Amino acid sequence: MSPPPATVLALAGGVGGAKLARGLAMVLPPEALTVVVNTGDDFEHLGLHVSPDIDTIMYTLAGRNNLETGWGLAGETWHFMAALEALGGETWFKLGDQDLATHIERTRLLAEGRTLTAVTGALAARFGVAHAIVPMSNDPVRTMLETDQGRLAFQDYFVRLRAAPEVSGIDFAGIDAAAPSPPFAAALADEALAAIVICPSNPVLSILPILDVPLVRTMIARRRVPLVAISPIIGGKAVKGPAAAVMRSLGHEPSATGVAAFYRDLALDGLVIDTVDTEAAPAIRASGTAVLITDAIMRDRDDSARLAEQVLAFADTLRTGA
Amino acid sequence: MSPPPATVLALAGGVGGAKLARGLAMVLPPEALTVVVNTGDDFEHLGLHVSPDIDTIMYTLAGRNNLETGWGLAGETWHFMAALEALGGETWFKLGDQDLATHIERTRLLAEGRTLTAVTGALAARFGVAHAIVPMSNDPVRTMLETDQGRLAFQDYFVRLRAAPEVSGIDFAGIDAAAPSPPFAAALADEALAAIVICPSNPVLSILPILDVPLVRTMIARRRVPLVAISPIIGGKAVKGPAAAVMRSLGHEPSATGVAAFYRDLALDGLVIDTVDTEAAPAIRASGTAVLITDAIMRDRDDSARLAEQVLAFADTLRTGA
Repeated sequence: MSPPPATVLALAGGVGGAKLARGLAMVLPPEALTVVVNTGDDFEHLGLHVSPDIDTIMYTLAGRNNLETGWGLAGETWHFMAALEALGGETWFKLGDQDLATHIERTRLLAEGRTLTAVTGALAARFGVAHAIVPMSNDPVRTMLETDQGRLAFQDYFVRLRAAPEVSGIDFAGIDAAAPSPPFAAALADEALAAIVICPSNPVLSILPILDVPLVRTMIARRRVPLVAISPIIGGKAVKGPAAAVMRSLGHEPSATGVAAFYRDLALDGLVIDTVDTEAAPAIRASGTAVLITDAIMRDRDDSARLAEQVLAFADTLRTGA
Repeated sequence: MSPPPATVLALAGGVGGAKLARGLAMVLPPEALTVVVNTGDDFEHLGLHVSPDIDTIMYTLAGRNNLETGWGLAGETWHFMAALEALGGETWFKLGDQDLATHIERTRLLAEGRTLTAVTGALAARFGVAHAIVPMSNDPVRTMLETDQGRLAFQDYFVRLRAAPEVSGIDFAGIDAAAPSPPFAAALADEALAAIVICPSNPVLSILPILDVPLVRTMIARRRVPLVAISPIIGGKAVKGPAAAVMRSLGHEPSATGVAAFYRDLALDGLVIDTVDTEAAPAIRASGTAVLITDAIMRDRDDSARLAEQVLAFADTLRTGA
């Protein structure tokens, strides 16, 4: 009997995470990859359960993501939104006609008593995604931000106020009562696990909620496989989104070095940084984290697959000590 | 000081009722008309509160109704529905992209604790409807049918099963605990009331639930103004929908005479019938109900206005005994 195939666990948030997850899905068979997704951005809107990061990952792995907007579905139409605007409804969070079907169906399935894990699996299957997309938890966790405009739910900050408020604090409401979703816990405990990959998502807004789910840090600390992260900060800037500004606001240096420091308490084994950040490598290595320097910007599917292969090869060298 | 203008109270269900309501709205100023609408057809679908008859009346009075389908909005698009179908969702009840905004906004406003009366008023105002569209009750009433395929909620019978099951009984779940909506009760008690008009809607499925709301029959019995109905059965057939079949199933003759008999316990003062039913007039008159014979089919807006004027003039003659 041959051993089970090596498996990879990827932790991801929105767009940047989706791009690497797509690459991992291109180079790994379905049974060898579990993508665990942040649900701290989930919210109830217009009576619907919206899971922005899950949808971004799902649409991207399905090849249905909208490349122009960076969110939502390609070829989307907006008749519902226009009609809602005419009725004086809330239109700050854009819901396309087809995207809306995802939220309506998710909400209906959840109302039937299914878990977010089961519902996500059912929706992803309908979108033809073969690799496992898994919420970090079936329990409600809501990212809350202390800002100069008061305490804000994540989407209020990020979409309604366009990430303009100055962030002074972050917490994840409900997280103390949350448990890792069963397939997340199973992936962490999987004897065939070969690597844990932290995708190039916002460390504070996308990855921290996943790490802070009870038991996750403990299970990561007990790992016997490499933990590798890809820096979402390149040349001191986020490739997309407010990662740099939020990191700075919360006292983290928005740089490859700052990302290494942010993950230091996980005893990060390896960090992938962009060539423009080469000069940061010695200090990161000195802190005990190996560094892979490469082109870390994913412009297209080929970039995603190439970076995914490099990340997996890097993790292999760290595991075997080669 | 001049007396307040005479007011008209119209009871209506779906398409046929909407056509006459549109005519009444064309010939009466906004303050002189209250259209009370059946809500027994309301249901929860995909987590949304759908009020089919209210929407038909609202869209028709707004001039936005879809003439081809007989329901929904003109110029509708179906991107949401197609996406929902691809996800394996429930698609037997068609929700257009723009129509969906009405249901989402109604559901949101109801969830905020507003009454169906307030929500209907807000939506109708947004659609530019100046005349009062009023639900029969703010309380949930659900039309249930005993059929040869079991006990069915109205939309299951009417839309999902296309009115094919044989109906053997009808009841209105929740009606014992329901009260007339405040503007309905106010219109019935209005000293300026000049006439009560029962629109050419399905007597059993659309009008009976309105009449069976507690207090309504009592207040109608105490009226001091003419009660006039327009027969929705013309030449033994319903102009649209299952009225004839349902009347027959429940032991009512599907004819102008049968409609007069159905409303007999209200001491109906006048019935408007189509010229093809002229031979029914003597028997109806013999039972104590005056009869107006006219072209009762409304093909377009002009027909609606013409019939509305004839109905109001007919009521005038009944009030003054002219």
